[in-house]
Amino acid sequence: MTDPEKAPLSHFDERGAARMVDVSAKAVTARVARACARVDMAEATLARVLDRRVEKGDVLQIARIAGIQGAKRTPDLIPLAHPIPLDAVTVEFRPVPPRSLEIRCEARVTARTGVEMEAMTGAAVAALTVYDMVKGIDRSVTISFVKLLAKSGGRSGTWTRETGT
Amino acid sequence: MTDPEKAPLSHFDERGAARMVDVSAKAVTARVARACARVDMAEATLARVLDRRVEKGDVLQIARIAGIQGAKRTPDLIPLAHPIPLDAVTVEFRPVPPRSLEIRCEARVTARTGVEMEAMTGAAVAALTVYDMVKGIDRSVTISFVKLLAKSGGRSGTWTRETGT
Amino acid sequence: MTDPEKAPLSHFDERGAARMVDVSAKAVTARVARACARVDMAEATLARVLDRRVEKGDVLQIARIAGIQGAKRTPDLIPLAHPIPLDAVTVEFRPVPPRSLEIRCEARVTARTGVEMEAMTGAAVAALTVYDMVKGIDRSVTISFVKLLAKSGGRSGTWTRETGT
Amino acid sequence: MTDPEKAPLSHFDERGAARMVDVSAKAVTARVARACARVDMAEATLARVLDRRVEKGDVLQIARIAGIQGAKRTPDLIPLAHPIPLDAVTVEFRPVPPRSLEIRCEARVTARTGVEMEAMTGAAVAALTVYDMVKGIDRSVTISFVKLLAKSGGRSGTWTRETGT
Amino acid sequence: MTDPEKAPLSHFDERGAARMVDVSAKAVTARVARACARVDMAEATLARVLDRRVEKGDVLQIARIAGIQGAKRTPDLIPLAHPIPLDAVTVEFRPVPPRSLEIRCEARVTARTGVEMEAMTGAAVAALTVYDMVKGIDRSVTISFVKLLAKSGGRSGTWTRETGT
Amino acid sequence: MTDPEKAPLSHFDERGAARMVDVSAKAVTARVARACARVDMAEATLARVLDRRVEKGDVLQIARIAGIQGAKRTPDLIPLAHPIPLDAVTVEFRPVPPRSLEIRCEARVTARTGVEMEAMTGAAVAALTVYDMVKGIDRSVTISFVKLLAKSGGRSGTWTRETGT
Repeated sequence: MTDPEKAPLSHFDERGAARMVDVSAKAVTARVARACARVDMAEATLARVLDRRVEKGDVLQIARIAGIQGAKRTPDLIPLAHPIPLDAVTVEFRPVPPRSLEIRCEARVTARTGVEMEAMTGAAVAALTVYDMVKGIDRSVTISFVKLLAKSGGRSGTWTRETGT
Repeated sequence: MTDPEKAPLSHFDERGAARMVDVSAKAVTARVARACARVDMAEATLARVLDRRVEKGDVLQIARIAGIQGAKRTPDLIPLAHPIPLDAVTVEFRPVPPRSLEIRCEARVTARTGVEMEAMTGAAVAALTVYDMVKGIDRSVTISFVKLLAKSGGRSGTWTRETGT
Repeated sequence: MTDPEKAPLSHFDERGAARMVDVSAKAVTARVARACARVDMAEATLARVLDRRVEKGDVLQIARIAGIQGAKRTPDLIPLAHPIPLDAVTVEFRPVPPRSLEIRCEARVTARTGVEMEAMTGAAVAALTVYDMVKGIDRSVTISFVKLLAKSGGRSGTWTRETGT
Repeated sequence: MTDPEKAPLSHFDERGAARMVDVSAKAVTARVARACARVDMAEATLARVLDRRVEKGDVLQIARIAGIQGAKRTPDLIPLAHPIPLDAVTVEFRPVPPRSLEIRCEARVTARTGVEMEAMTGAAVAALTVYDMVKGIDRSVTISFVKLLAKSGGRSGTWTRETGT
Repeated sequence: MTDPEKAPLSHFDERGAARMVDVSAKAVTARVARACARVDMAEATLARVLDRRVEKGDVLQIARIAGIQGAKRTPDLIPLAHPIPLDAVTVEFRPVPPRSLEIRCEARVTARTGVEMEAMTGAAVAALTVYDMVKGIDRSVTISFVKLLAKSGGRSGTWTRETGT
Repeated sequence: MTDPEKAPLSHFDERGAARMVDVSAKAVTARVARACARVDMAEATLARVLDRRVEKGDVLQIARIAGIQGAKRTPDLIPLAHPIPLDAVTVEFRPVPPRSLEIRCEARVTARTGVEMEAMTGAAVAALTVYDMVKGIDRSVTISFVKLLAKSGGRSGTWTRETGT
């Protein structure tokens, strides 16, 4: 990993002005990123979210669509993100009993720049959408983390989060 | 708080179909919501984010603008959220040494529906933008929570998160 | 109904220039509009769309979310439509065996202008989304109509489509 | 054509979760799609729409711009559509006396995925815009169909709608 | 007019943080703003823009639609602008021979905040669209100014630009 | 330069219908465009805009972000512009004492079509944002021009504005 005490922040030029980094000289390569988010809630709330039969309405399905749409909106939301023609976005859910729901978002592109922000944004928007749908019964529900799990492709190559971080 | 085992999820009708809840019969009242997010990073990364003199570029300023813009995009991102004419949005930052940055977003509206999702979305998008700007030096930076702190206005009145949750 | 041979088209001024009609002098009233769309397809395709158990994935749920989001995007899509703070949007489906799916979208607002276009756009976007999801198995699926069923509120009052038109 | 009773719906994975299909392994090819929509109205309404000299304002010109812009908004509207760098969009009108207006939209792209949805969305948004501009004189105007006419490019090759369907 | 040497910039709080100004305590009043833009070009280019008969295509009609749509997009473009339910937008053109086209945009709203930015943005987007359509024959075309002409409504009341500025 | 009296306007077909020009047969090349805008204001206002120490809040930083975001929104704003995957956008400011601020926006893409409109739109939106932030102290501030400085890449090659125009 780059030494955070010395490396420049690439989103700023040498005079400190923010910029959308110039990627025109980079190679077009296949890139993948995976991020996750976790939503913590009361046990009874989680049961409601997971039980499609009882609710009929499907919180997870709606959150999945919102996450996919959110990943597509990344360049609108993140000021210095590049607009990219995404190849794929998936959003998956995994209950972590007794109180948590884990969300994973994977994004793919064949481009000059990576898709970390698309994966992060997709996971975050899916989590926000879960919150929106259960806040009427439990406002204290918390998005307990959003983080990158892995990314590959591009000059900086493959990166995987160390276990337990 | 509503009992999460029994109360209906208002975003679904009696047959389970998702809907944008009908608020036409609700009163127009002044509503406020405050949410926060926290971003955890290496000490050296936090120092970089906070030191405007060294960087000249200003990570927090950009994240603040992104958070305000993100709050405005809430109805585009959250499928069942109502479009509302926001009265105010603010985003504030507070360093929590040695490794964390806390983000607070407050949203206000005079309307038939609340602004919890605008405050949550504003905080989350500001946090994602901080991540975007430091990921080049530290990809393991984590958004360690996004949660509602308080809301007031409307029929359900004032709600404040209990300390320590 | 206004005589179509003589009445002016309100979206054009006396010199023929298009405009967003000035509604500032109109009263704020509760307004409702309902529109429908129909999607015609092979019998086997309709069976696939309706059978949630077989597919697990839920075409209708996704189309419903897209329709609600589409209704919210109306002022972005329809050049002379006013941006309005929608009070409610619902999208419902009704199979019309053996080959059709009917979609109904209802929109509500308390405003100076009506919601016909929101209801029409919501129905159309839901229908386009159904098409998107089945086009891989049957490209000849047709959106066989999109039309307004009824509207109420505002100076022109209540209008209901005559049976059979 | 794929057998609709057996083929999987590609927008769902094997467990039924919706996804933006991964196109990263597909070839970049030139793709074209053509769709049409028809708007049916009273004879006098059609005369108004077609007579640029009388109206000066130009319903068709505005609907054409809306259709082109609508085709560009496809990935915002259709949840599982890929964002693509469109090469071209055209929208054309053909009166079908005494009561109909036919709209054709053609979209082109050089990409890993097709442009059927862009052509369909462009045709539908142009039709909705015609409706918006004449609804003041005739609310019963109907979009009487939206359908794909032909598409070419990509692995599934060329498809043309059979005459009379 | 406020003394620019002393008055605070309202978009920043007392610590210098940018914010969307809180308008919740302001009165809802009818507000109007008018802005203009001028596009300077070669005489032959202006002739092309103005001659609908020769071109058939209508540069001004398209620029008008773009200006109206642009006014609606103001809160997406201007970071600290409030989303408002616009009552009306008009865009007008006036040739200023031999080389200029003047564009006027008027916006109206009944709200707690003004519409100056909507009028300015509408005029600017209309001007950019004229540029887009003639740049193929004359890239040196210049948008020679964009400025506010007048505004009324709200606590600061009526303001009119002094002649000749 | 093309003769403006004879060359066709490429955004219209031979019958005068507007279109998004078909670029599918063009070569993918590296393209760059630079545009500028100037904002004229009272001396005291300019001093306020430039003095980061006094204001703490940073007008230019916010305008820069708005300009970069605005460049990305070009296909949403300019009806016949192509959606393109931008490689880079930068926005720079240069004070022109005693009363002016010059804004330069540079956009880059590797695509079948140019980035002139992205550079022009980025410069214009940055200028509008400066206006938004100072209008409270000086409504007569004027965007005194927006123009293309240079462009390169593509079949029409390099173009540079002549000095003094």
